[in-house]
Amino acid sequence: MNESPEPRDATVAVDAGQSGIRARYRGADGAELEFGFGGIRTDRPLLPQLAGVVMAVAEDAPEPLRDVSFGVSGLTPAEAKADELLESLRPFGTRRVRLAHDSVSAYLGALDTDFGAVVAAGTGVVTLGVGAGGVARVDGWGFLIGDAGSGYWIGRAALDAVLRAHDGRGAATSLSGPVLAEFPDVEAAYIELQSDPAKVARIARYSAVVAEHAPDDAVARGILELAGDEMAGSVLAALSRVGERENPAPKVRAIGGVFRSPDLFSAFESSVRLVIPGADVAREEARPLEGVARLPHVTPDHPLAPHVAVAGVPPVE
Amino acid sequence: MNESPEPRDATVAVDAGQSGIRARYRGADGAELEFGFGGIRTDRPLLPQLAGVVMAVAEDAPEPLRDVSFGVSGLTPAEAKADELLESLRPFGTRRVRLAHDSVSAYLGALDTDFGAVVAAGTGVVTLGVGAGGVARVDGWGFLIGDAGSGYWIGRAALDAVLRAHDGRGAATSLSGPVLAEFPDVEAAYIELQSDPAKVARIARYSAVVAEHAPDDAVARGILELAGDEMAGSVLAALSRVGERENPAPKVRAIGGVFRSPDLFSAFESSVRLVIPGADVAREEARPLEGVARLPHVTPDHPLAPHVAVAGVPPVE
Repeated sequence: MNESPEPRDATVAVDAGQSGIRARYRGADGAELEFGFGGIRTDRPLLPQLAGVVMAVAEDAPEPLRDVSFGVSGLTPAEAKADELLESLRPFGTRRVRLAHDSVSAYLGALDTDFGAVVAAGTGVVTLGVGAGGVARVDGWGFLIGDAGSGYWIGRAALDAVLRAHDGRGAATSLSGPVLAEFPDVEAAYIELQSDPAKVARIARYSAVVAEHAPDDAVARGILELAGDEMAGSVLAALSRVGERENPAPKVRAIGGVFRSPDLFSAFESSVRLVIPGADVAREEARPLEGVARLPHVTPDHPLAPHVAVAGVPPVE
Repeated sequence: MNESPEPRDATVAVDAGQSGIRARYRGADGAELEFGFGGIRTDRPLLPQLAGVVMAVAEDAPEPLRDVSFGVSGLTPAEAKADELLESLRPFGTRRVRLAHDSVSAYLGALDTDFGAVVAAGTGVVTLGVGAGGVARVDGWGFLIGDAGSGYWIGRAALDAVLRAHDGRGAATSLSGPVLAEFPDVEAAYIELQSDPAKVARIARYSAVVAEHAPDDAVARGILELAGDEMAGSVLAALSRVGERENPAPKVRAIGGVFRSPDLFSAFESSVRLVIPGADVAREEARPLEGVARLPHVTPDHPLAPHVAVAGVPPVE
């Protein structure tokens, strides 16, 4: 039943994101090499880009790259062609390839193959629940119509609050200071933002400002509390769908930049515990590369197995 | 004190919007001619486009175009060069030019020069309050960070609600039917929408769907109630800022497509009346061209006067 690579096999883990790619080689002797590359280009074919990363690793690696795993941002089922990728990696000695969406590797990085829910919140947010009932993805629907509680969501709420205060529709807030410093003519801010190709990242950057102001500003704190509540709602929905809602102490992990705010994490934690008092809630650093390296831990009987494309591994019954 | 054109003068009113321009000629004998043109191009100089409209009207008009008024979408103070425009219109016999932002002409179309507040809600929304205390513009801050309660805001809320129901984060809603008909793979809807250059109008079109479903769907009704409440908040802020909040029966007019929904208008009206029980709240068809034709009613002592650029009128003391 053990699908893990033999101890003597060298492994490569590749975390392929849109803002950067990281790769880690681990030799049979435990020696490690780390690599960094530019982000994957979603407007170009994916597999050659992934193969190119392995080719670069192979140049420095002392041993054949027997076991290669990929976590890929936004991977669609149609792109998850592990067999094809394995063929192109044969020249590097590769015998097994595993390919998964980065929400799967983020989950493994936080909870390994344990059941529970992981919410990963940066500019956007996506929640994955895993349990006996299967796998549930919640939200992750982008800045326009989804990503409730994300960095973008928080930053947008900050700008909205500043304009409400300006209009006399909302309470005064110390968030107006930094926003007016960037947009002295606040009534024209929306025109500048709408036409900025980097608007999503730019608006999301205000989430750090909200976190800074929360201890002394009720409006900022209110935004973080609502964000925490939104993400708790996503986690509870995910736990329900996978059959972990009835677990008296389900594991819940919060990763990603926005949870660095103690106010946000505390709001998130209390909203989860309001419904499941015994929930095992913790915040952790994201370990996407470690998560990719754990893809071999996903055995065929695990609920995550249908979400990992595997090639080159003999079928296990 | 009367600045209105003499009865024998022919007038032209031009409502210049981004999706279309309408113009109306009214002769000394009361005869009227109406004209339609393509929308103004915000990426080209404004004044030649406005002069071009008058030139086209002059070709069909039997009399010199003595008095010409313009309401212009998104007009900035820097563009409101009435003197320059008057010079270019002299060949058509023009002696007076008036130029205002379309929120001013929308106001005049609904309330003429009476004090009160007008909320104009289509894809976006902007509220204008006018009173002894001056003029207050509230919201109108675009789809990304403003326009609370607008058609876009309602449509976005509908898509959000459908995805929440899909995720198990929100109540089931009959809005899922029409959304799934357009996006059979609802989890990919956000990708298609984000990349659609017409996304704002496309999302705003769902506001009509929400209005249709509101009588039988609590989620749709909740969205309209919140939209009405948002716009009531904008109106109340505008009334406060111009000194009309203390008026026991201030005039409040709601114009624009989204108010065709009785549920929305009713929510709006009750939210206003919750704060000002005697408010004179009514919904009206937008009459932007009529509003432009009323620009001459704005006398120099009226609070709107600083928002109307005038050229060719002898100073009135």
